[in-house]
Order: sequence, then C-alpha cells, then structure tokens
Amino acid sequence: MASRRTRRTRVERHEGGAVTTREDTLVVEEPLEVRIDGKPFVVTMRTPGDDFDLVAGFLVSEGVVHAPEQLTAMRYCAGTDEDGRQTFNVVEAVLAPDVQRPDLAMERHVYTSSSCGICGTASIDAVQKIAHTSLADDDTTFGADLIASLPDRLREHQAVFDRTGGVHAAGLFDDDGEPLCLREDVGRHNAVDKVVGWALREGRVPLRGTVLQVSGRASFELAQKAHLAGIPVLSAVSAPSSLAVEHAASAHLTLVAFNRAGRFNAYGATHRIS
Amino acid sequence: MASRRTRRTRVERHEGGAVTTREDTLVVEEPLEVRIDGKPFVVTMRTPGDDFDLVAGFLVSEGVVHAPEQLTAMRYCAGTDEDGRQTFNVVEAVLAPDVQRPDLAMERHVYTSSSCGICGTASIDAVQKIAHTSLADDDTTFGADLIASLPDRLREHQAVFDRTGGVHAAGLFDDDGEPLCLREDVGRHNAVDKVVGWALREGRVPLRGTVLQVSGRASFELAQKAHLAGIPVLSAVSAPSSLAVEHAASAHLTLVAFNRAGRFNAYGATHRIS
Repeated sequence: MASRRTRRTRVERHEGGAVTTREDTLVVEEPLEVRIDGKPFVVTMRTPGDDFDLVAGFLVSEGVVHAPEQLTAMRYCAGTDEDGRQTFNVVEAVLAPDVQRPDLAMERHVYTSSSCGICGTASIDAVQKIAHTSLADDDTTFGADLIASLPDRLREHQAVFDRTGGVHAAGLFDDDGEPLCLREDVGRHNAVDKVVGWALREGRVPLRGTVLQVSGRASFELAQKAHLAGIPVLSAVSAPSSLAVEHAASAHLTLVAFNRAGRFNAYGATHRIS
Repeated sequence: MASRRTRRTRVERHEGGAVTTREDTLVVEEPLEVRIDGKPFVVTMRTPGDDFDLVAGFLVSEGVVHAPEQLTAMRYCAGTDEDGRQTFNVVEAVLAPDVQRPDLAMERHVYTSSSCGICGTASIDAVQKIAHTSLADDDTTFGADLIASLPDRLREHQAVFDRTGGVHAAGLFDDDGEPLCLREDVGRHNAVDKVVGWALREGRVPLRGTVLQVSGRASFELAQKAHLAGIPVLSAVSAPSSLAVEHAASAHLTLVAFNRAGRFNAYGATHRIS
C-alpha cells in the first residue's frame, strides 16, 4: 500500500533568485466514498491505506456503531477510473440488521468544506465545468521575492488577533504585495471562504491578478477554492497534497508550497513566477 | 465582534513537575448553519465574525454563485440558545430567482468530519446521548512526564512515512506510554478515525485507560471522537478551541494542549494527570 500513500512529482525549487528542478514526494489525497445499504453516506478526502479502519472509526464517531458485531462486513465496491482500473475509493459498510441506520437527512448537518466529487478525476472535471472563469488567460506575473515575502506579510497582519495559537489565516494580495483582505478562523477553509466572500460582495470575483497566501497546507480543496474564485496563484506555508498539485496543473493554477525562510516550491502553472 | 472570537478560560499549566493555574485565551469555535430557501444547507464549525463573507465565499466554492447579484441578501435567522439569547449561528442566504439551487441530495457528497449539531450546546447534548460509554468512571492516571513525552514518541514512529511534510498523525498509547496504534493521513480527523476504527475491529472500544496523541490542534470534533471511543485523555501539540475545552469539561475528558518542549496545558478532567 505504501506506493498509494505517496507519489513522486517534479517541482521547481526557488531560493534566493535561483530555480532548480527536482523530484519530490507528495502525500496522496484521494476521495473515499462510504456506502451503507448501497446508498452513498459520505465522501471524505483521505490518504489511501487502512481504509476499513477509517470507515469503522468514522461510523463510531458518527454514533452509528459502538461494537464490532454491529459492523458485519466492509468491502471495496466496483469503482473504476477512466481507464477502467479499480480505484479502491468506494467502500460498502454492511451494518447488522438491528443497527439503526443513520438519518441521511441529518447527514446534511455535517462539518463541511468545499465539496469534492465521487472520485478524483471526476471531481476535477466537475469543478472545471462549474468554474465560470478560466485561469488560463490570466498572465499576471509575480516576482519570486514577492512570493517569498508573503508569509511574513500575512503574519504581520495576523499578530493582533492571534493570541490563541489556534487560528488559520488567509490573505489576499495584489501583484505589488499589497494586502487586499485578511481573515482568520479556527478552520483553514473558512479563512479562505471569508476572503472569497468579501471579494464577491465587493464585486471583485473573479480575482484576476491576485495571490492568496494561507498559513497551513495546500489541499485539493483550497486549490479548488482558488480556482473557482479566479485567483491565479495559491501560496501555502506547508506541504501540498498530490491532488492539489494535479488540480493546479489542470486548472492553470500556480501552486506555491513550503513557502518559508525565503524558499518555496512551485507546481502547476509556474510561468507566472518571474 | 472581537469578544466573540476569543474567550478566556482557566488552565492548568504543567512544566517540569510543577503545576500552575492561570487564565488563557482560546479561539472560539461555534457551528454556523447556512439555510437556502429556509432549508438547512450545511453546518460548518467556524470562528464567529465575518459570517456573511463566510457564507458568500462558501457559496462561491460550492459553485452556487459567482456574481454578487446572485446573492440577493443574507440575514441572521432566529436561533436561540437555552437561555433564549440570539446565537447568531444561523444565516439565511437569499438567492436570486434565476440561480439554480444546489442539489441537496448531492450535498451529502461533501468532505466531512464528525457531525456537530445545530448549535454548540445542542450538539454537546446530542453527543452525550449517543455516547455508549461515560468517561466519568475511568480513573486511570497518567504521569505528567509520560504525557509530555508523547509528541516525541509519536514523531519517532511517524518518521518512516513522513517524507512529505504533509500528513497528520494520531497515536494511541496505554498508561505506560506504550504505543497501541499509530496512523497518518492528509486529514487530521481521518488519522483519528483510523485509530478508532482499528480499535473497534480489535474489540477494544471503549478504549479505557488510553491516551490519544495528535499532531495538530484540539478541535471540538477531535474531543468528540475521543469521547465516543471512550478515550479518557486527548493530547494535542497545538492549541485547543473553546468548544473543545467546553466539551472536555462536560464529558469528563482530560484535554491536553500545547504539548511541546516538555510543557503542556490541561483542561477539563485534569485529575487524571498525576
């Protein structure tokens, strides 16, 4: 299973004006759909591996089961990618007859961040379809030194609120590095949603010519949020996931990660970095 | 709004065998329910503030709207806590007539972690009801030095897989500090679900006498997962949220946070730390 948990990718490494290209290892992020009685129950983004443990633990956390005999069996369903290969991304959980089925209507009341789809490829296709703007023709360029300065600029503005150590921050900057909007939240997706929502209400979506700096990792969902808001460059302090990098490549998004101490890696549409 | 974003709480600070009590500032975590056409659309855990931006941005990320005129209005609905006070935790989003409504059936396909409820208090009550085990009678004690050693023990076992910098880890330990199960995932909730699912399948739930160490923050949802799995002590490397601390207190859970460099803070059922 180890090979399904990490994936190699080519990356541009920027440091002090120099650019080198090398291979890097990414953590794999793929969706897992859980079905109960043959019906979709939930989809979660996850790293493949220990999937039956993940499904069982999720059912415990949802209060559906609390004893092993309540979960009779688990199996991978037929689920194939565009090349007809089994994806191992759909699991059927078989509950004992006397276990009360979760109220699917209640399942709307789940903590959520932006939706993905049934499988990685399908969801990226779906996003491409609903995006009302393409990033392909946004040819704004951003200096590598400006990109490298964004984490400090974000922290500078964050300092007042963050007495708690518990918040994530997202900041939108123009191509001169001027801050347009900065938001903090206990949830990293929420911080980005607050920035995008501000922009929508200000009539600024799509956000051409801007860069979004976030305090944490670059997940698929953040890459998707940047894409849908028309933001051409997403920069993260920490690691990207495999699906974030794949989405950046297909959506013409410039994805920057490990942006700290004057260095960063770039993925996807790297031509916007000058 | 500032006072709704942070909250003061009393905390036990442990360092080198010494314990001091002081006031600390927590980031507030509360659920926000979004309604469309009067019907519940989604509930997300968030830090209060900029709620209309959050709702607008979420609708952009879901592909529901992409222009400001598609979102006609937003308003706080009547939503009151047990004392009849307005919670400001329910927002109605009014879409223009020609905007296609999101398919609520599709909304089950959202990235999810463990459910919360409609409001903080209600959800905690709901969890107490569905928990098949009480932590109150688990009087296992854990040495403060053992607790302080857990982040290193977790990293020690994590080292092999984490070449990517992008994963979260969760490790279950017994009261001698021996590891029972360690899992990694791109999603921090998934890492915990994988540990709990392993335990369920091994017939070890409820996990009396154990401590769960996680690599990130202590959110309400992780506190809830620990509670439902019968784990009496949850320890996190980073900050706790306000709701995690409140849940720990009501569920008799020992919550440890900022566990690093030999120091940690303890909340909730602190009597288990000797």
